[in-house]
Amino acid sequence: MSADRAPVYLDNAATTRVAPEVREAMAPHLDAQYGNPATLYTLGDRAARAVERAREQVCALVHAQAPEEVAFTSGGTESDNWALVGSVLRADKRHIVTSAVEHHAVLETCAYLQARGLAQVTVLPVDGAGLVDPQAVRDALREDTALVSIMHANNEIGTVQPIRALAEAAHERGVPLHIDAVQTVGKAPVDMQELGADMLSLSAHKFHGPKGVGALVVRAGTRLDPYLHGGGQEQGRRAGTLNVPGIVGLGAAAALATPEVLAHEDARLRALVDRLWQGIEARIPQVTRNGHPEQCLPGLLSVCVAGAEGEALLLYLSQRHDVCVSSGSACTTGSLDPSHVLLAIGRSTELAHGSLRFSLSRYTTDEEIDRVLDALPAEVERVRAMSPTWKG
Amino acid sequence: MSADRAPVYLDNAATTRVAPEVREAMAPHLDAQYGNPATLYTLGDRAARAVERAREQVCALVHAQAPEEVAFTSGGTESDNWALVGSVLRADKRHIVTSAVEHHAVLETCAYLQARGLAQVTVLPVDGAGLVDPQAVRDALREDTALVSIMHANNEIGTVQPIRALAEAAHERGVPLHIDAVQTVGKAPVDMQELGADMLSLSAHKFHGPKGVGALVVRAGTRLDPYLHGGGQEQGRRAGTLNVPGIVGLGAAAALATPEVLAHEDARLRALVDRLWQGIEARIPQVTRNGHPEQCLPGLLSVCVAGAEGEALLLYLSQRHDVCVSSGSACTTGSLDPSHVLLAIGRSTELAHGSLRFSLSRYTTDEEIDRVLDALPAEVERVRAMSPTWKG
Repeated sequence: MSADRAPVYLDNAATTRVAPEVREAMAPHLDAQYGNPATLYTLGDRAARAVERAREQVCALVHAQAPEEVAFTSGGTESDNWALVGSVLRADKRHIVTSAVEHHAVLETCAYLQARGLAQVTVLPVDGAGLVDPQAVRDALREDTALVSIMHANNEIGTVQPIRALAEAAHERGVPLHIDAVQTVGKAPVDMQELGADMLSLSAHKFHGPKGVGALVVRAGTRLDPYLHGGGQEQGRRAGTLNVPGIVGLGAAAALATPEVLAHEDARLRALVDRLWQGIEARIPQVTRNGHPEQCLPGLLSVCVAGAEGEALLLYLSQRHDVCVSSGSACTTGSLDPSHVLLAIGRSTELAHGSLRFSLSRYTTDEEIDRVLDALPAEVERVRAMSPTWKG
Repeated sequence: MSADRAPVYLDNAATTRVAPEVREAMAPHLDAQYGNPATLYTLGDRAARAVERAREQVCALVHAQAPEEVAFTSGGTESDNWALVGSVLRADKRHIVTSAVEHHAVLETCAYLQARGLAQVTVLPVDGAGLVDPQAVRDALREDTALVSIMHANNEIGTVQPIRALAEAAHERGVPLHIDAVQTVGKAPVDMQELGADMLSLSAHKFHGPKGVGALVVRAGTRLDPYLHGGGQEQGRRAGTLNVPGIVGLGAAAALATPEVLAHEDARLRALVDRLWQGIEARIPQVTRNGHPEQCLPGLLSVCVAGAEGEALLLYLSQRHDVCVSSGSACTTGSLDPSHVLLAIGRSTELAHGSLRFSLSRYTTDEEIDRVLDALPAEVERVRAMSPTWKG
């Protein structure tokens, strides 16, 4: 690791660097424009107007029907918790349909609701690429199904679900569809109308906005209880003083992700990922790529390295090469359990322990991919040499 | 209103200006130090260490037993919701005791839990100064009481509750006490051990930290379910990627509120409030002061102006004098209902509509108090002249 180089940051599915334009948009609201948007004087009114501008920016990004459908939250996890709990408690229907590869924010909320007797949950399996079958949704629906919740793109393997078909399956029985779109919004085109989703979770820090802010976009007419109760903010839907700098930052990040930028980045990132994968495949034996080869996020590569511990690999990559990657997802750090996503797509426990995720961003360069390809083979060899199970 | 003067900001109970030291502490985490603290490489580790430093700073501020008792949230509202919902669902005891002057974040959560059949709620009355009687808590406790939730200081009238006596009353029956200390933490000394509180809500933006971040401090051993489910962050207590810049800002704001600063500000703010009140009393007939004269926040003055609409007054003060004050609390803006706090202390509906709240901060100057005293009498006269009920 040379001290004069910035780290090679390939963990953009965990979090991203705040864009300079975002930081600049936030700055006045961390300084003289500190008003509470719920107040009536000029200082508060200015804050309220900045929030409404951000609401329009987020509305445009996901193609909601109107800015009023956007409710700001503290991030993707709150949005997911809200969609699930708010649906079952409001509808007085207690059944949820979800999938085995969802983010923990969905799966753990489902497990909690079930443990407390507040919901019953059907967890659908996925195929080897991580896809949910729309027919499986159809078969799982019951009279008392309150909600189907399926993620847009998977955070570990990048597979993009057939949301439109899943929405149609749910809608046949009048059941709303919630999608956790935390990994797609700001990174790939997201059109709620085209997708047919009724609720959508997004998080600013996944696309160069700040941490601690996100949104739940709720189609007008969707029956949903509030999750944070209190003051009348967000038209009574989400209480709590609005995080004005964060919300303005989210809006600015949304404004940066124009269709042109997304189209350009889609091609560029897919080419970088292809080169990274081909380089790994050529240099390292017994590596498997995870996820769907085409229906996937543009900037994510997930691999399983036989006979290697993913966490050991990522530590060596960090310590010796200043390369930041992830083993599984950031939200399960410290857990010794193998990834539930990798198990769900049929990887063995042993292989799942050897997973590495490379997630790129609009700041990722060709040279950074080269640095990874230079560093990785020797580190894999090193880790494999220490492995009691690796038989080379 | 002259354009060359900064506004006179006397709405610090609604929100406060971020301190320059706080902004400076946050800056690197909105820039190059953007790591996710749940990751294992150096960039993530640096973020994790910054978070743990902030946890120590908050621990020291409220005299928790250990930093691990501090769990970061998105603000006071989330903390209150968590304490209430997490207690009743965990304990499988479904009774909550609270008071009529609580913040909406407590009262609305209680009302929601009751409406959904998840809790039964006893709302205790207060006396004319806004105080809860410890004996009333004793009398309200039941076998199935999960929690007593009483605020430390009231956000509208500033009255400080006898928390220690309330805690003793609750503890006699083994019931934990939650306090919403959003208005006291960072503005007055708060010692959880001395107070005997088992859970405490706080919010950064009430004491010169950023919006969108707060904490719930939970005494070790207190039985509480998580409220945001998902990743294993905060030792499994609160899921969601940590809002690193916000948390670092909260820690920096906590570090600024040293015992010396608080002691100095206590004397200074009480003198300013006294002068403001005496000036108002001398210049304007038929004005009543709300709240307890001694057991109160140092920097808050709440008054009821007979025959005047509080909202009209605050709009004129803003438009013509660039003075920012509040009528009731910021969280109920737009509501035509009179303040539930003022009704609970016995004010008539008519008088409650004429309320004004002045809330000062460490940045408030003598000259600003003069500007208010110069501006207010004529505006009261103006509003009263338009009132159909004012009989002078």
